[in-house]
Amino acid sequence: MSAEDRVQLAHGGGGRMMAEFIERHIRARFGEGPLRDLPDASRLAWTGPEVVFTTDSYVVQPRRFPGGDIGSLAVHGTVNDLAVSGARARWLSLSLILEEGLPLAEVDEVLSSVAVAARACGVGIATGDTKVVGRGQCDGLFINTAGIGEPIAGYALSCETIRPGDRVLVSGTIGDHGLAVLAARERISVAGGGPVSDSAPVIGLVETVADLAGAVRWMRDPTRGGLAAVLNECVTGRPWGIEIVEQRIPLAPATGALAELLGVDVLHVACEGRVVAVCAAEVAEEIVRRWRARADGRQAADIGVVVERPAGAVVLATRVGGRRLVDLPRGELLPRIC
Amino acid sequence: MSAEDRVQLAHGGGGRMMAEFIERHIRARFGEGPLRDLPDASRLAWTGPEVVFTTDSYVVQPRRFPGGDIGSLAVHGTVNDLAVSGARARWLSLSLILEEGLPLAEVDEVLSSVAVAARACGVGIATGDTKVVGRGQCDGLFINTAGIGEPIAGYALSCETIRPGDRVLVSGTIGDHGLAVLAARERISVAGGGPVSDSAPVIGLVETVADLAGAVRWMRDPTRGGLAAVLNECVTGRPWGIEIVEQRIPLAPATGALAELLGVDVLHVACEGRVVAVCAAEVAEEIVRRWRARADGRQAADIGVVVERPAGAVVLATRVGGRRLVDLPRGELLPRIC
Repeated sequence: MSAEDRVQLAHGGGGRMMAEFIERHIRARFGEGPLRDLPDASRLAWTGPEVVFTTDSYVVQPRRFPGGDIGSLAVHGTVNDLAVSGARARWLSLSLILEEGLPLAEVDEVLSSVAVAARACGVGIATGDTKVVGRGQCDGLFINTAGIGEPIAGYALSCETIRPGDRVLVSGTIGDHGLAVLAARERISVAGGGPVSDSAPVIGLVETVADLAGAVRWMRDPTRGGLAAVLNECVTGRPWGIEIVEQRIPLAPATGALAELLGVDVLHVACEGRVVAVCAAEVAEEIVRRWRARADGRQAADIGVVVERPAGAVVLATRVGGRRLVDLPRGELLPRIC
Repeated sequence: MSAEDRVQLAHGGGGRMMAEFIERHIRARFGEGPLRDLPDASRLAWTGPEVVFTTDSYVVQPRRFPGGDIGSLAVHGTVNDLAVSGARARWLSLSLILEEGLPLAEVDEVLSSVAVAARACGVGIATGDTKVVGRGQCDGLFINTAGIGEPIAGYALSCETIRPGDRVLVSGTIGDHGLAVLAARERISVAGGGPVSDSAPVIGLVETVADLAGAVRWMRDPTRGGLAAVLNECVTGRPWGIEIVEQRIPLAPATGALAELLGVDVLHVACEGRVVAVCAAEVAEEIVRRWRARADGRQAADIGVVVERPAGAVVLATRVGGRRLVDLPRGELLPRIC
């Protein structure tokens, strides 16, 4: 491969090569909208009264994994942070940090994946940036996306509104993303196929129950730290707790098998296309029914309940009839899964 | 230094150590506003009808340089992209990529610098993210900030509105930032003191002439690629060109001396606290007068004019009476200056 087929420092230098890079690789894909004239900042029409704002950087390794890549993940992750906040993503920013020497074909693959995912999510790329660092100064390619979205009418989500008796729902199997990335990185081959990432937008799941929004207390996408982290975040410092039932938690066979093989608690493993919701008991069945009617929610389940005691804790009723505390992960089991 | 005083992979893992990191290092500084409850996304009051949106990643090396550091730069750069688009920054996102092993004291220094700069710019940190990568997988610390701002009444900036006879203004000396970073990185010591970065917010310069906004055609902050890059961006494909006069271009002695020593064309070197503006001739003197009345515009100058010929080009009338084309930089002279 010749030098021209690789990322060079000058691609980030503000000169002719950067202008050509932006033209060929960025504007060719994202130049239909506000990026047409490559402004320093994009002016976007907005109908108030709120903007919902989020950001995430993506450093997943490997950049391609069963079910997705860093490009689609950088779109889904940010669109999903808005969705579980009760907002529909309108515009994303896209910022790249590239390592000198990275094949441009790989950059193109990632950018095409961003473009496809953004189109599927109905979100535009409004503004961007490209930096290049020398060899050995970053690991290939990092992406940051920030997103702005508009509130979906009816959602007023807050942990504060949760009451004992509320139900805890999850929209599908857990832990698939984290274990798919881990298996790809460690080249673990599993007979019958390994875990496949659930990386996907969850906005459809959120919108399909928007008419019940008043009875939805709180939503999260269980990414880093998995189901355990989001449920602990929810109960910490509250005068109530959460009890979940192990056998009700949806688990893909390949994911469950690999977690057991590796001795990893699947409750600690990231999803990238699931919603965890706490809702009033009277709408729980209807939400699960609607989610199950969708391809992206076929395995949705009511997995537990908000309880008065123990307050501030998450308890798991295990398959064998025991009960144990579900804590936050203590060390770092799975670095760079997002 | 013990392991507890350094960034660990678990600080980005979604577990207990990440929660503690966020609490001690992030919420302690930025927890007064929308970050109080660490939402996935922040809901921000907005009065339409537009949102102005921008992003930049910062990889400057070294992270501290005369006149600033990566933290203040990450605020100024993004606030300035909004300012030269005729918008006042309201909220920033703040995303960190940290290398395992980086002293936490260095992270704290950078975050404190972000906090001080944000306060000085009147902008809040609304949302954030922290990722940790292993040793050798990034160069210490990278920052991304995205910013949302609201339009300043009166500005309708576009290259399309520029006409021959319009004047070209710059708010201060050029090239200080790029050469300050280069001198710090290469440990070049200069008798009498080296260049000092101009890193600073330019929003005051933009606001102080807002009543003349209708006569301001176009603004840019001349960062990567310097004055040459922004002026070339302006003229490319247009039926007019720009002529600038070398002896009118403000230049700090230390910056000019180092540029000459290194054989660097200072027109290609980044500023991080300057505005380049093209305006109607009748307001040029007044804008320069008002800028010069401010500490951040004391050396503002009218440096040239929009000309009919040569179209699509930037020409420099040199100190010795010659004329030369000002082109985009071709290679990469100064990597990682922002």
